[in-house]
Amino acid sequence: MHDALFASSAMREVFSDSARVQGLLDFEAALARAEARVGFIPAADAEAISKACDASLYDLQSLSAAAAGAGNLAIPLIKELRARTNDSVHRGATSQDAIDTGLMLQLRKALPLLEADAKRLADSLAALAASQRNTAMAGRTWMQQALPVTLGLKAAGWLDGLTRHRARLRGLRGNLVLQLGGAVGTLAAFEGQGLRVAAELASELGLALPGLPWHTQRDRLAEFATTFGMLVGSLGKIARDLSLLSQTEIGELNEPAEAGRGGSSTMPQKRNPVACAVALSAAVRVPPLVSTMLSAMVQEQERGLGGWHAEWETLPQIALLTSGALEQLAHAFAAPDISTRHIAANLALTHGLILAEAAVTKLTGSVGRKLAQSIVEAASQKALDEGRPLRELLTDHLSAADLDSLFEPARYLGEAGAFIDGALAAHQAE
Amino acid sequence: MHDALFASSAMREVFSDSARVQGLLDFEAALARAEARVGFIPAADAEAISKACDASLYDLQSLSAAAAGAGNLAIPLIKELRARTNDSVHRGATSQDAIDTGLMLQLRKALPLLEADAKRLADSLAALAASQRNTAMAGRTWMQQALPVTLGLKAAGWLDGLTRHRARLRGLRGNLVLQLGGAVGTLAAFEGQGLRVAAELASELGLALPGLPWHTQRDRLAEFATTFGMLVGSLGKIARDLSLLSQTEIGELNEPAEAGRGGSSTMPQKRNPVACAVALSAAVRVPPLVSTMLSAMVQEQERGLGGWHAEWETLPQIALLTSGALEQLAHAFAAPDISTRHIAANLALTHGLILAEAAVTKLTGSVGRKLAQSIVEAASQKALDEGRPLRELLTDHLSAADLDSLFEPARYLGEAGAFIDGALAAHQAE
Amino acid sequence: MHDALFASSAMREVFSDSARVQGLLDFEAALARAEARVGFIPAADAEAISKACDASLYDLQSLSAAAAGAGNLAIPLIKELRARTNDSVHRGATSQDAIDTGLMLQLRKALPLLEADAKRLADSLAALAASQRNTAMAGRTWMQQALPVTLGLKAAGWLDGLTRHRARLRGLRGNLVLQLGGAVGTLAAFEGQGLRVAAELASELGLALPGLPWHTQRDRLAEFATTFGMLVGSLGKIARDLSLLSQTEIGELNEPAEAGRGGSSTMPQKRNPVACAVALSAAVRVPPLVSTMLSAMVQEQERGLGGWHAEWETLPQIALLTSGALEQLAHAFAAPDISTRHIAANLALTHGLILAEAAVTKLTGSVGRKLAQSIVEAASQKALDEGRPLRELLTDHLSAADLDSLFEPARYLGEAGAFIDGALAAHQAE
Amino acid sequence: MHDALFASSAMREVFSDSARVQGLLDFEAALARAEARVGFIPAADAEAISKACDASLYDLQSLSAAAAGAGNLAIPLIKELRARTNDSVHRGATSQDAIDTGLMLQLRKALPLLEADAKRLADSLAALAASQRNTAMAGRTWMQQALPVTLGLKAAGWLDGLTRHRARLRGLRGNLVLQLGGAVGTLAAFEGQGLRVAAELASELGLALPGLPWHTQRDRLAEFATTFGMLVGSLGKIARDLSLLSQTEIGELNEPAEAGRGGSSTMPQKRNPVACAVALSAAVRVPPLVSTMLSAMVQEQERGLGGWHAEWETLPQIALLTSGALEQLAHAFAAPDISTRHIAANLALTHGLILAEAAVTKLTGSVGRKLAQSIVEAASQKALDEGRPLRELLTDHLSAADLDSLFEPARYLGEAGAFIDGALAAHQAE
Repeated sequence: MHDALFASSAMREVFSDSARVQGLLDFEAALARAEARVGFIPAADAEAISKACDASLYDLQSLSAAAAGAGNLAIPLIKELRARTNDSVHRGATSQDAIDTGLMLQLRKALPLLEADAKRLADSLAALAASQRNTAMAGRTWMQQALPVTLGLKAAGWLDGLTRHRARLRGLRGNLVLQLGGAVGTLAAFEGQGLRVAAELASELGLALPGLPWHTQRDRLAEFATTFGMLVGSLGKIARDLSLLSQTEIGELNEPAEAGRGGSSTMPQKRNPVACAVALSAAVRVPPLVSTMLSAMVQEQERGLGGWHAEWETLPQIALLTSGALEQLAHAFAAPDISTRHIAANLALTHGLILAEAAVTKLTGSVGRKLAQSIVEAASQKALDEGRPLRELLTDHLSAADLDSLFEPARYLGEAGAFIDGALAAHQAE
Repeated sequence: MHDALFASSAMREVFSDSARVQGLLDFEAALARAEARVGFIPAADAEAISKACDASLYDLQSLSAAAAGAGNLAIPLIKELRARTNDSVHRGATSQDAIDTGLMLQLRKALPLLEADAKRLADSLAALAASQRNTAMAGRTWMQQALPVTLGLKAAGWLDGLTRHRARLRGLRGNLVLQLGGAVGTLAAFEGQGLRVAAELASELGLALPGLPWHTQRDRLAEFATTFGMLVGSLGKIARDLSLLSQTEIGELNEPAEAGRGGSSTMPQKRNPVACAVALSAAVRVPPLVSTMLSAMVQEQERGLGGWHAEWETLPQIALLTSGALEQLAHAFAAPDISTRHIAANLALTHGLILAEAAVTKLTGSVGRKLAQSIVEAASQKALDEGRPLRELLTDHLSAADLDSLFEPARYLGEAGAFIDGALAAHQAE
Repeated sequence: MHDALFASSAMREVFSDSARVQGLLDFEAALARAEARVGFIPAADAEAISKACDASLYDLQSLSAAAAGAGNLAIPLIKELRARTNDSVHRGATSQDAIDTGLMLQLRKALPLLEADAKRLADSLAALAASQRNTAMAGRTWMQQALPVTLGLKAAGWLDGLTRHRARLRGLRGNLVLQLGGAVGTLAAFEGQGLRVAAELASELGLALPGLPWHTQRDRLAEFATTFGMLVGSLGKIARDLSLLSQTEIGELNEPAEAGRGGSSTMPQKRNPVACAVALSAAVRVPPLVSTMLSAMVQEQERGLGGWHAEWETLPQIALLTSGALEQLAHAFAAPDISTRHIAANLALTHGLILAEAAVTKLTGSVGRKLAQSIVEAASQKALDEGRPLRELLTDHLSAADLDSLFEPARYLGEAGAFIDGALAAHQAE
Repeated sequence: MHDALFASSAMREVFSDSARVQGLLDFEAALARAEARVGFIPAADAEAISKACDASLYDLQSLSAAAAGAGNLAIPLIKELRARTNDSVHRGATSQDAIDTGLMLQLRKALPLLEADAKRLADSLAALAASQRNTAMAGRTWMQQALPVTLGLKAAGWLDGLTRHRARLRGLRGNLVLQLGGAVGTLAAFEGQGLRVAAELASELGLALPGLPWHTQRDRLAEFATTFGMLVGSLGKIARDLSLLSQTEIGELNEPAEAGRGGSSTMPQKRNPVACAVALSAAVRVPPLVSTMLSAMVQEQERGLGGWHAEWETLPQIALLTSGALEQLAHAFAAPDISTRHIAANLALTHGLILAEAAVTKLTGSVGRKLAQSIVEAASQKALDEGRPLRELLTDHLSAADLDSLFEPARYLGEAGAFIDGALAAHQAE
């Protein structure tokens, strides 16, 4: 029931029941054509098979029920395809060839979806980094105000991670390979034509031809999982930040207000951060699913028992959750709701304490680090206790001019601008 | 597509989309009746609401789509229910009250299903333990033959763990509690009637009334997950054992042969252990899902962001996978295929080496442990190297009578019988 | 290097290298005494063994190195113990008997430590719930202000979960059982005395005697992991709340200030919430470790390969991290730093919007729910946009008296008091 | 106590307490030199600091205790370093700069260790693939004999995955970057010299200079975890295969026999597969630790609370467990114990059933697939039931010549040779 909330609609289509069946059928159709081309099966058989390889012709529910008995989906599907056409169906191949290749075909559709949404989010973050380059705001460490940063720098940090993830996603294309090995990975049933069929089939499907079958070498699949998992980790970080910044008491950055979105069933004033909820829940759910994919790599001998089966629903689920988190944040950052008023107010909230480090730095020049630190610590404590500006308590130690420049957050931003430039340049290069 | 393979049909019904919606509606209907009873809403309103609380009246697909915008399923459902009936719908409650209580109602149906299948499997294992009490077989440690055990003892070990899990499942009934707190867990919108409504509602639904709302105290839900997870761990152990015992080269215990089950798409002689595949894949998938439920416990303040959402699909998935593993093994052990021929052959395979420890024990009496150990080690190595029976190589050290009794595996079974009795007694008591 | 930060010192002692060795030695000593008592080994042998079973006599480093070759710690330790004493050492037992029982002896020491710290934390939370019963504060859902609660209610929620965990911890005592099975769990090498030795040994060690050996039935150990894991989940929730409440912009509740604790290396004004960091990191780390323990349950045949080994460091680590999280929070809540000033200010921050639901409730009586909702929504939006109090914008709809009572948060706390009482009563009962 | 079993000694040195402290000190020394070079601190100060940056000068135990109060290790270490030298220590940097960079320095040492052991294992597997190119053996799917493969092909499969992992390990070098950002990642305290100091420091340490600080962008660290995790998954697969092949009843491939290794404490004939135990336990433990690293990526704002802390022990543990699994398997495959006798016997075990698919293929030509399948299925069942060779039961359907060629496993190996060549070529290229 919550698919539509937790996954993008495009990704749900890629991993729908019907698309899974179509993936298997695309394998079978292309296999038949490849085999016909090398003369392993009659061309007429291949043609008939190709025509019957349309998922809409099959009853998904009865296939699913039959899969329960057979142990996988390919067996009943092939049986039915054979019944509809001819005995040349699936010649020489094993169920896992169809299932693994079908999955690769689905992943090939999934990758550009993620890449596109990642680009969309990255573009928005880049725009935010550029436009808010000089918006000084409170930086926070250990969830406490620490020193000033800029909203632009914060966006640049988010962007920078995302730029690396985009490169990783692109790198995954190399993992899109054909699976064809026959029962034990030797292509023995192809009677000497195996390598030619495999080459033709890979070219038919537009998948790379791997050095050897990988029925129980699952690192490529695992790498889809880990790559998506790392992306989700970074999305969770963005969402955590956003949810913290949009707290009622902070109010610096909010998801865009939209009719019918994030409303409470009982509290009219509320606007719940739905994108954050989706991304944060993905960040809770995906890491253990990645763990599943890694544990499932321990697959026995020529074809495994249990590990392979554990992948079937897990990798699609990872892709789905990743798509949802990505799409929701891309949506939220397409029109982020920035409150410069809150940003400024929070920066001023501690009456200068947020610049305590700057004061130490400044004082160190004249009195040395140890004394500087103890002067500022004492003044900070007094400021906290008495609710007074830190500036007032340092007049004995620094000149008015020094104090003026000191308590201007915009002058204590270090290399924030250069870092923003760096992140933007990397984004442009990607 | 693989639901039917990985989960029991009864459990799939409990966690179907329609059942999830019905859970919410059962909450709303009972809430209305409870509120009417204490005079908080008009009786006529409650009656109308009750009548409309039938999931078959709603379009699940459009609800699912609406949930994506709203952030949860309850919001659009309540909206539609209100549109169909009156404003008294959901009075005073919050979405999470409906969602959590609905889940509890589903779990209440799930528990007896698991308990019944667990009993079925336990009864089969008990029968196996009893009937194979004296079937000596090779015991294996570190995946090497070690010393003799009996098939009955092996079954008793499986049974013993299961008996404890059955007690744990029973203990979970105490976790079936009502959720009713209103927006922040104070029942403030009930205008002083909250406690009475809650009591009436709990009694309407047959759920226990907890001491206070638990919107962000999720330990009870987590305990369903951990309890199911432990059960799956033990089922995975049984399946691993069974899959090892049914290897072609061992062949001692097999899943029952059935037409159309576990056949290979290419190899006519094969019988794939489907129940093992299902239980082993559950044992790979469920532990990380339990991890998700534990991580998701970190829910913020009065109602959380992300953690709660992470539970929605995860706990049902755990219950589903548990049901599948349990049902499949219950099925497999209803008529296990025992090959006493293979059991005996494997026990004899090492020509007595499996009794090397017994020889050490026996010799220790006369020559001391150190010497006994070194004599038997040397003889064992010689036996391995030359393919000769260990017995022959010990004739210098032990009398023929001693050797006769020594190399009778059935005489080196220790307390196997007593342990079987213990497991059977515990099973009877459960 | 971070053990001292992440675990309590008492728990580190329980799971120190030396304590692990002592656990094994305690098993061996008690086994010898038990065997002597039933006449299975000479009493003098047992006495000599008992005397040599003192971990301080052994070189831990060389034992550790030897364990790497042997595959476990028991083998070299037993070898050395035998060399120091006599051949009666470890008679009839297997390495795993010593290792598992040694672990149980460590867990027996671990449990009261956790129980004591849990009680300490629970007592502090109970005191907080009682003393802050009437301290109205902003309740927050989805990380947004929602409706008023009390600090007492928040503490009662934390307490309530903890009370259940304390009962679960107590329940674990039943899992403290002896392991004694010999090589394959039959006690065959005891030559008929196995059951008597086991009974004597259990009584020597003060552990329960299980129905049968559990070399590959690991549910009891898994239950330590899951129970600790659930506790850590709840501790993480408390820490997340505390860290949110202690943000600079919220400042309602802080860890106690202490010299040299939580200071920043650079920012003199900062006070980092160290207890939160410890508890939150435990809440990140422990759930996957629980997953490990559940996955590791799949242990082959009579004694497993890999799964058992995976437990050795994992379960102690879970206990250690749990102890650290618990101790740190117990410490933090022993003297929590409450700012009633910040609590009141935050409650007033939205100029009444936090009572919007209350306004809907009040208005519903006169104009019906739908209209009430739309009036309050419009007024809320206007209040937000114009920065005006919600009260002002409802003067057309409600009388001054109604508005007075409405905008008094302390009058919209529902059953908070009753729920606090409930949690305190359950705490008293535990 | 089990470090020596579960991790390589070289890796234990890399991640020892002393090496961790030295990593921090290397950062501080290089920082001081870099700062002196740009004139930010006096050269004499830098020299003094450099000299004091030797871990052997510090008391690790008291540092560890102090870290517990301070919240991390850097704070007390810097304090002591400052006390020993001068105030220029750590100027402008934050604790996390030291801790993260120190970790990167450790990882830089860890990578070549893993690469070297991976190469060692790969070379052994390549040798095995080449030498056993024609050793026909039973291929197994779903843990059942299926069709013939060769031992060479099996080794080639293991090798192929490993070759990809080696490329991934090499790719990780790009993740070895400096961390330098100061308190909130702006380098503000460097008074305009931050970028120059960072560049000098990176060059001092031989780490890459990242585009911007990454205090809460943890994808690079996560990628170490996921890459190691994938490697461990493949090692677990190798170990599972090896453990299955070395079962007493199969006996085809064993870990090398070595004095004092894998002996049983009670059974003189046993040789426990210690390398398998280590690799399999790593394959159970590492995936959840990877999950931890991914979950920990959700780090708040400029520097996080809990997530960062969760990494400290987790990533080293992953590296350690990976090193152990890799080293143990490299050791085991340096001199694998191959039993061609067992290999041949198992291949012949089913009296030809293992070639049932080949029979179907052969018959299909004459009678069509459906009939061929049913003839062979019936014959297979008969062969099983009556313990007769499949060949005998097909004499009605195939000529003696056909049968001769059919029941020669070495003639039904398909493209095994070509696949071995492929894996060897990829290995050579790596």
